[in-house]
Amino acid sequence: MTIVVQVSAGPGNWERYHAPLTQALLDVGIDATVTQTAAPETVDYLVYAPSSPLQDFTAFNRCKAVLSLWAGVERVVGNPTLTQPLCRMVDPALTQGMIEWVTGHSLRHHLNLDQYINNPDRIWNPECPPLASERVIAMLGIGALGQACAQSLRSLGFHVLGWSRAAKVIDGIQCYHGDDGLKSVLQQAQIVVTLLPKTAETENILNARALGWLPQGAVILNPGRGALIDDDALLAALATGQVAHATLDVFRVEPLPLDHPFWAHPQVTVTPHIAADTRPATSAKVLAENIRRGEAHEPFLHLVDRHQGY
Amino acid sequence: MTIVVQVSAGPGNWERYHAPLTQALLDVGIDATVTQTAAPETVDYLVYAPSSPLQDFTAFNRCKAVLSLWAGVERVVGNPTLTQPLCRMVDPALTQGMIEWVTGHSLRHHLNLDQYINNPDRIWNPECPPLASERVIAMLGIGALGQACAQSLRSLGFHVLGWSRAAKVIDGIQCYHGDDGLKSVLQQAQIVVTLLPKTAETENILNARALGWLPQGAVILNPGRGALIDDDALLAALATGQVAHATLDVFRVEPLPLDHPFWAHPQVTVTPHIAADTRPATSAKVLAENIRRGEAHEPFLHLVDRHQGY
Repeated sequence: MTIVVQVSAGPGNWERYHAPLTQALLDVGIDATVTQTAAPETVDYLVYAPSSPLQDFTAFNRCKAVLSLWAGVERVVGNPTLTQPLCRMVDPALTQGMIEWVTGHSLRHHLNLDQYINNPDRIWNPECPPLASERVIAMLGIGALGQACAQSLRSLGFHVLGWSRAAKVIDGIQCYHGDDGLKSVLQQAQIVVTLLPKTAETENILNARALGWLPQGAVILNPGRGALIDDDALLAALATGQVAHATLDVFRVEPLPLDHPFWAHPQVTVTPHIAADTRPATSAKVLAENIRRGEAHEPFLHLVDRHQGY
Repeated sequence: MTIVVQVSAGPGNWERYHAPLTQALLDVGIDATVTQTAAPETVDYLVYAPSSPLQDFTAFNRCKAVLSLWAGVERVVGNPTLTQPLCRMVDPALTQGMIEWVTGHSLRHHLNLDQYINNPDRIWNPECPPLASERVIAMLGIGALGQACAQSLRSLGFHVLGWSRAAKVIDGIQCYHGDDGLKSVLQQAQIVVTLLPKTAETENILNARALGWLPQGAVILNPGRGALIDDDALLAALATGQVAHATLDVFRVEPLPLDHPFWAHPQVTVTPHIAADTRPATSAKVLAENIRRGEAHEPFLHLVDRHQGY
């Protein structure tokens, strides 16, 4: 029997996903019609991104799962019409892209590359940076992505501290949790990486109080979610020098509005939500595997816990 | 019996090395006088850098070894008065510093960080860079330092090719050698890292002919020796765009003269010979271990082969 897979994922994604998804389904032995439009009551699986006009899931009464193309599901998890199982995207290429972004931007600040990239006075100052082992990086969020980044930084020699809301134990990473843990981690951090999901508890986690715990001159890297940081508090901390630099990949409004103070700020680097892109070739395989599981009545991978919100 | 260790290592190094070396010798059970000046015929070991005024080793007739503070020994290996055993510095912190420099500068170019660091037009272009696995890095020179850097780049996912004059086999690195191998490696390379010793055979190894083998838009990172690159050929290759960027840590004359065209060149980044600095705390331990070996009549570590020149 042929199943129906509808892709509702916003502009451009149909063209990017149609062929790889069809192939990946064939590869796992699933006979499927992959389509942009079908009668909702005939759809077996929805491949979804919140940039799609589809916001009401009520009519999809046969749909066995909504498979998000995005790792972050905060824009859909609270939708009351979404009663079907919801799965996050955990794409190995997305993880790899995130590792590269976090490692590259950490090394930019660790090695102070900017002083050499922009050196109009031709200053020859043969002073070495400290070694990575003398640099403390705090990873806020040590789920799949955070752990992968932490291990990459650790293998380069950095002293990595991990923080999560609930206690975790991770090999080689000194882990902290809860409010007291957050204070303790931030007080030690020279570089802070925010890789938390966006939930009611993580929104504005880097607010004025938390930024105040940082040592003078700390650097912030946010490839997670724009709402993790209180923008005004960050601008204030940049003004005092408590935060020396922030490199931000995610924002409350994207694309970042042209009049936003982050754009021209000399201590802020904006990257355009590229730290962890979903890549069709690899993520189509993850989607196909979850559809195969659904058809075989096996548990879905990366199923979202509605209560936790991720 | 107390042995005499003379430090002749140019400006600043006496202050940096005196205490760590004294301590490291104590730690391996060697009773030594560590001094800047002694009667040459009383000196048992010379800790040496070519920036020292000492250039005639004839009078050091009891000296059991000259221990270089530098990894590169080309400025001393041909000295006809130097008949004592000569050891290179292989400092674990130097290796670690080199790994960090090479990895950081590779990621700068791989991720094209400059387009975000300097983005006055506020361009939001959410196009991802390729993954490291799609990027070929050629490592010219796969001795201790080159191998360590190659493994770090490989663990980040880069496709690393190695090249050396004579054939080598290294786990996980596709190795080439000789003139044919050089052409083959350079034809594939998007990023080239030069980490060869300076010898008659490696001088100007990146000349106009070799640079002509590179694909259009390649990037060169030279943390090895200034003389590995023909500066005029490099400037010509930058002008045509065959080489998109060069990041250079070492130069034929250092500090790089203020009127050198590299300084103001928009496609050149100058770093002030910092990729691999010798750090007193760790290198003093290496010096002490070699002195311990000399006293115990054990073979020296990192003994230079005068014929090969390194």
